[in-house]
Amino acid sequence: MALNPLDNIRVVLVGTLYTGNVGSSCRAMANMGLKNLVLAAPNLQNDWEEGERLAVHATDILHNRKEFATFEEAVADCVAVVGTTAREGLYRQHVKTPREAASDILALAAQGPVALVFGREDKGLKNEEIAQCTHLIRIPVDEGYTSINLSQAVLITAYEFFTALGNYQMPHEKAPPAPQAQKMQLMKNWSKMLQEIGFMKPEQEDHFMQGFHRVFSRGVFTKDDAALMLGVARQAIWAKNNLNGENK
Amino acid sequence: MALNPLDNIRVVLVGTLYTGNVGSSCRAMANMGLKNLVLAAPNLQNDWEEGERLAVHATDILHNRKEFATFEEAVADCVAVVGTTAREGLYRQHVKTPREAASDILALAAQGPVALVFGREDKGLKNEEIAQCTHLIRIPVDEGYTSINLSQAVLITAYEFFTALGNYQMPHEKAPPAPQAQKMQLMKNWSKMLQEIGFMKPEQEDHFMQGFHRVFSRGVFTKDDAALMLGVARQAIWAKNNLNGENK
Repeated sequence: MALNPLDNIRVVLVGTLYTGNVGSSCRAMANMGLKNLVLAAPNLQNDWEEGERLAVHATDILHNRKEFATFEEAVADCVAVVGTTAREGLYRQHVKTPREAASDILALAAQGPVALVFGREDKGLKNEEIAQCTHLIRIPVDEGYTSINLSQAVLITAYEFFTALGNYQMPHEKAPPAPQAQKMQLMKNWSKMLQEIGFMKPEQEDHFMQGFHRVFSRGVFTKDDAALMLGVARQAIWAKNNLNGENK
Repeated sequence: MALNPLDNIRVVLVGTLYTGNVGSSCRAMANMGLKNLVLAAPNLQNDWEEGERLAVHATDILHNRKEFATFEEAVADCVAVVGTTAREGLYRQHVKTPREAASDILALAAQGPVALVFGREDKGLKNEEIAQCTHLIRIPVDEGYTSINLSQAVLITAYEFFTALGNYQMPHEKAPPAPQAQKMQLMKNWSKMLQEIGFMKPEQEDHFMQGFHRVFSRGVFTKDDAALMLGVARQAIWAKNNLNGENK
């Protein structure tokens, strides 16, 4: 089986202050298929109780984390070092969005370790850290509030890599779509029913049935959907013929 | 000025348990340009201290929230009710990813209020709530850990609507790209320098310069980048001619 490039991606948190953000990042990583967490020069201000709690069922990622004293050591073996930055500046001009950058970086991750680097909660990455990055990404955010929580930044970045890989299969509609003949039968039976119950006269058929065509043509219409609506037509005719004012 | 469709989108949190998730959702909304928060049948288990803290600078969204006793009241005026669901089931088969659904739903948001509906932390949306939704979306997640935090779900959904709107402008590289003539001058000057400093012989020029062409052709190469590398060639020649073993 081919290597999963996500297994070659590590999330490197630099100088992180709060264990809660580390824990939330673990959960976000697990949601998006990432496993490798590295803390570089952590500067943690609280104990691990909050971190453990917010990791929820991703505590394996938290417990298997690696720690390095410096940023340089954390990324020494990486073939690509992808920095994230919200700030602008001379060395931050060649940024891309995570969506723009994802496929190129996944191709590198198929060849060797890749670091996704996230800076301090309060100050981000320093210029000397940015200078060591081979790629820079910036998450699109509203200009009215550009400060994004650390684990939220990890989530969106990881999400873009996960979706770019294209391995996710949406569950597909289990009922097959209705074939055209069934839809035409539905229109015919509804027309008959609508006339029998006195909803429309024969000369109004063209006008009204265009409306019903439109209603039944929106989106996917399955065989089960068509069978259900055919049942309504059958029952309305039966009721008109047999109930004679009962159930009023 | 045309209406911003995001102003017509409300985030509806149904039966939410923890104020922290409400606060984190406010910050995520602000990051992605959403302003309108509605709590439907909230079931809050703790006080607002944590919610206020995690909203950070998005407390205006928190304070301006509306609350309704029922889901029905919270979405009564909406032209589209978009449910989010992680579970599968009979009434959950026509789901799309937020990316697939975003443009259709933004078009509806240009016409009237749209609700993005998020269920309880532990149990999501109930079947009778799902049945009232006009659209269903599911966030792509790794099958190994499908349970996503409430505010993380709000973030990714809001992010997809924000990016689909296409209003975000990435800061562009301020230095213009180097024109071809400058790049050719760079190659010529480097070739001269590399021969003068004894790095390569004239008969090796073709071979080596192909390598340098390759190095300097990766990605965008700006006028400033080219000027910098031209400076290196100039200085190397000057040093060879003038320094005579100094600075060893």
